[in-house]
Amino acid sequence: MKMENMVGDRFKERPSDCVVDSHAYMVRGGYMKSVANGIFSSYPVLKRITRKIEQILREEMDAADGQEVQFPVVMPASLWQESGRYASIGKEMVRFTDRNQSPLVLGMTHEEAAVQLVRDYGQSYAKYPFMIYQIQTKFRDEARPRAGLIRVREFTMKDAYSFHTSQADLESYYARMHKAYERIYERVGLPQVVSVASDSGMMGGSVSHEFMLLTPVGEDSIAVCQNCDYRANVETAECILPSRAQREAEALTSVHTPNIHTIEEICAFLHSDQRDSCKAVVYQSNADDRYIVLFLRGDLEVNEAKLTKFLGFDVHPALITEESGLTPGYIGPVGLPKNCTVLYDRSLQGTNNLSCGANQEEYHYTGLCMTRDVGNVEYHDFAKAQEGCLCPHCGKPTIQVSRGIEVGNIFQLGTKYTQSMGMTFIDAEGHTQYPIMGCYGIGVGRLAAAICEAHHDDYGPIWPMSVAPWQVHLCAVRADHAEVKAYADALYQTLQDNGVEVLYDDRAVRAGVMFSDADLLGVPLRVIVSPRNVEQNIVEVVSRDKRLSCTLDMPCAAEGIQKLLAAWE
Amino acid sequence: MKMENMVGDRFKERPSDCVVDSHAYMVRGGYMKSVANGIFSSYPVLKRITRKIEQILREEMDAADGQEVQFPVVMPASLWQESGRYASIGKEMVRFTDRNQSPLVLGMTHEEAAVQLVRDYGQSYAKYPFMIYQIQTKFRDEARPRAGLIRVREFTMKDAYSFHTSQADLESYYARMHKAYERIYERVGLPQVVSVASDSGMMGGSVSHEFMLLTPVGEDSIAVCQNCDYRANVETAECILPSRAQREAEALTSVHTPNIHTIEEICAFLHSDQRDSCKAVVYQSNADDRYIVLFLRGDLEVNEAKLTKFLGFDVHPALITEESGLTPGYIGPVGLPKNCTVLYDRSLQGTNNLSCGANQEEYHYTGLCMTRDVGNVEYHDFAKAQEGCLCPHCGKPTIQVSRGIEVGNIFQLGTKYTQSMGMTFIDAEGHTQYPIMGCYGIGVGRLAAAICEAHHDDYGPIWPMSVAPWQVHLCAVRADHAEVKAYADALYQTLQDNGVEVLYDDRAVRAGVMFSDADLLGVPLRVIVSPRNVEQNIVEVVSRDKRLSCTLDMPCAAEGIQKLLAAWE
Repeated sequence: MKMENMVGDRFKERPSDCVVDSHAYMVRGGYMKSVANGIFSSYPVLKRITRKIEQILREEMDAADGQEVQFPVVMPASLWQESGRYASIGKEMVRFTDRNQSPLVLGMTHEEAAVQLVRDYGQSYAKYPFMIYQIQTKFRDEARPRAGLIRVREFTMKDAYSFHTSQADLESYYARMHKAYERIYERVGLPQVVSVASDSGMMGGSVSHEFMLLTPVGEDSIAVCQNCDYRANVETAECILPSRAQREAEALTSVHTPNIHTIEEICAFLHSDQRDSCKAVVYQSNADDRYIVLFLRGDLEVNEAKLTKFLGFDVHPALITEESGLTPGYIGPVGLPKNCTVLYDRSLQGTNNLSCGANQEEYHYTGLCMTRDVGNVEYHDFAKAQEGCLCPHCGKPTIQVSRGIEVGNIFQLGTKYTQSMGMTFIDAEGHTQYPIMGCYGIGVGRLAAAICEAHHDDYGPIWPMSVAPWQVHLCAVRADHAEVKAYADALYQTLQDNGVEVLYDDRAVRAGVMFSDADLLGVPLRVIVSPRNVEQNIVEVVSRDKRLSCTLDMPCAAEGIQKLLAAWE
Repeated sequence: MKMENMVGDRFKERPSDCVVDSHAYMVRGGYMKSVANGIFSSYPVLKRITRKIEQILREEMDAADGQEVQFPVVMPASLWQESGRYASIGKEMVRFTDRNQSPLVLGMTHEEAAVQLVRDYGQSYAKYPFMIYQIQTKFRDEARPRAGLIRVREFTMKDAYSFHTSQADLESYYARMHKAYERIYERVGLPQVVSVASDSGMMGGSVSHEFMLLTPVGEDSIAVCQNCDYRANVETAECILPSRAQREAEALTSVHTPNIHTIEEICAFLHSDQRDSCKAVVYQSNADDRYIVLFLRGDLEVNEAKLTKFLGFDVHPALITEESGLTPGYIGPVGLPKNCTVLYDRSLQGTNNLSCGANQEEYHYTGLCMTRDVGNVEYHDFAKAQEGCLCPHCGKPTIQVSRGIEVGNIFQLGTKYTQSMGMTFIDAEGHTQYPIMGCYGIGVGRLAAAICEAHHDDYGPIWPMSVAPWQVHLCAVRADHAEVKAYADALYQTLQDNGVEVLYDDRAVRAGVMFSDADLLGVPLRVIVSPRNVEQNIVEVVSRDKRLSCTLDMPCAAEGIQKLLAAWE
């Protein structure tokens, strides 16, 4: 490809709406163009990168005995009604009707379509296990698209679905896919990606993992143990607090606390530690606005994923009305109205000498003792894991919370979809059973952005060779110089003839422009032909990451470049 | 791929809803599964075929200096409002709103997106010409999906858009793309595809061609000259009638014709030729229901594409009310109410002695002479070309009408989109101009179906090698026979190691089942290992199209098969 013909412009200025580097470089480098909020077109540079990523995904899926299929982007609502997700998924799923008023949806994931495709095929145990996958466009009507390709509404995804006759078989295949995913990240230049236990959310199922690139610009929070290999999304990570010294129980005492509403205020007023307070957080059910009051230790935050998973329905922060009987700012576990669901976080179990609301305007209690004053209640884990929590694996207080970009996920789905959609098989003993499913996703564009986040400098991306848009960026500095032009033209031809992917820049622009453009395109190997080099009978070869810088004699430059590429790591 | 692992079932019975062979074989052979009306999932067999077609398309587009990009499936309505097509395109475009009530559409073509992508890039003449293309999902809410992959609602399309600074440059590139399309059809095994002049319909622009596979199951009608190389879609083909002998004009005479309403009835009543009648066809404007009365020779049919192109707006067959002043069944050119648009087809120009309605219940005229009785009106071409028309190129009465499947189209768009969307460039003289566009489409699935229509026998498809899902179908008949199994396993391995794509059937099924499955999969070369063959130290090799049938000695079979593949035509 000649640079002068390549569609797409490059810019010097960082666009003001780009909050992450990958987005800024992809806009500045002519990789992508915004079409609407969270919807982009790809220029040739990005298309070349995503096609290489897709090919790696395809190879690894094929190596895992996957069979490539294709599901539709547009699906009938009836398919999603079968699984129950037409009702349970919110606004992120686009719904519309066709010319005959039949309800349709845009696919945001394809479990239903996968079951529909193989429901008839998989009727005998002898057909199992099998895995089908596709690489296809998806649309998710995100409330807040952000960060360029990291959170978009329309995206290309590799999604795979495996079907098994036993949980053991699923688990063994799940482990195989975990390895395949590790190979994928390794191959695209992200060996540092880690897998973390995660919440399966709307997918259903129990065991699931997210693959995370740890980076401060990530959207997810991950609890990482500094002592062992425990890692989990904060949404799912157990919150285990270090134990505190036992104290003698004080009496429950009412205190007049006018104008004091928050945990910060009450603790300041009482000169006490937030850990010695009992915080109330109030939610309402999305379905019927019923109140849910959750009590937890004052210094902790609620993990809403754990809460909704426990409840089995979605909630939103409460709007507390007079009729509720609740006293905002003064809610506590003693003397609460009976008409709401009350939950207790594990952090309160066995604690005493706490401050809490007295369910009366302008009054708090001190000296709350959970067992004595609240009685025999159940405690569950509803709190967000935080810095200093105990690791659920090694037990050390070595949990830290890091940010990460989720670049893939795998789920053990169980029989959620096969059961709801009536897919069965006859086992070897003649019994009817539901197949057990796994599913496995990687977003192509987000992976490209994550690679860019992990591999760039102040001037642009540094693409790993495996996904680079071209292998060699050939710069003919002063192409108006006859010898430079003739040599560079010939080198371009020779390299292409030998199967090397070359981007050739023979534009009549200053070397500075040429090199800053090359920095934005991030091609791993740069070859420079210039009048001074030609005079010395050499070409300069530098790698985009600056680890390599050498000269090659002009007559054997093509061969030398190919050797460098063959030995590339 | 081992047959026993391949997802998808094969059936013996032709499904009753399949009206064309390609659809029947693709359902029976486990190629595709219906998800909703006009929406399908692809099983691995079809996915392999479409990927091969896509790769051929990509290679030919790249060879024509195309640059692969990607546009979104979901686009903001605003983009289509810019071009005016948000209003002008009907129900075939899906419209919906996102969670913020912003109107969006599903892409059914991407002229607007193409202009949006390069509007900033193409500001200088020096950037031209360039061509961008994508291979991507599209959705068109067809009123009547039919014939399997031939007319669907969701489909994968290769669509390309070229941009030029002059009409001459567009024309030369258009010719180049015409050649690229010919190569594509040649490469996928359809050298018989012909290009025909066509109407550009909703795309705008003037010159356009459709590429047609002529077949009785096609949806389109094509006027084909039996004498020269003239071919045109009947929607656009000029209707030129052979001239008839001049006759002396009779007087305009009113005739009482009770209960006579149609051309057939009046001609039977008068014992006259339909060519001696003047037929009225009444339409109404979609926008304001205004009446349009079109007169044409009694034996001809209206070409609505020509009519709407002439009018510049869409129409529908009229619902004639009393207020209209029209007398259904008795409408004629003499004494018509003044409040409707009246059009005359060329077939009536200079004719006389015609029968026609008298605009009065139960009365017709005979002896209508157009020049004498209707006066000085304009005549235009509104009639469908039909068998026996004169060829517009060679002038002979050798037009025949054939059926065809449209497997591609190319359009000279002019400045319709660049002008409406404000895309300009500065020419070499410093003047601002609108770029001139061409666009070029091929539907991948429909092309696969067309190949199947052209290449099948009574037992299934016969895929051309270039698009076949596999090159070799290896049948181990009686794989329970140790020698058969050992040899076939080894041959499978050797062929795969040498890069041959092999589908390997070692299932414990009867030879009849194995071969009828193989017929449905249509792999070009079949290799049969059986106990009898092993005894004779041979393998049987037969081509799916039966032109080749030979044996190879077992020790050199792999080599022999590879030689056959290398020499394949």
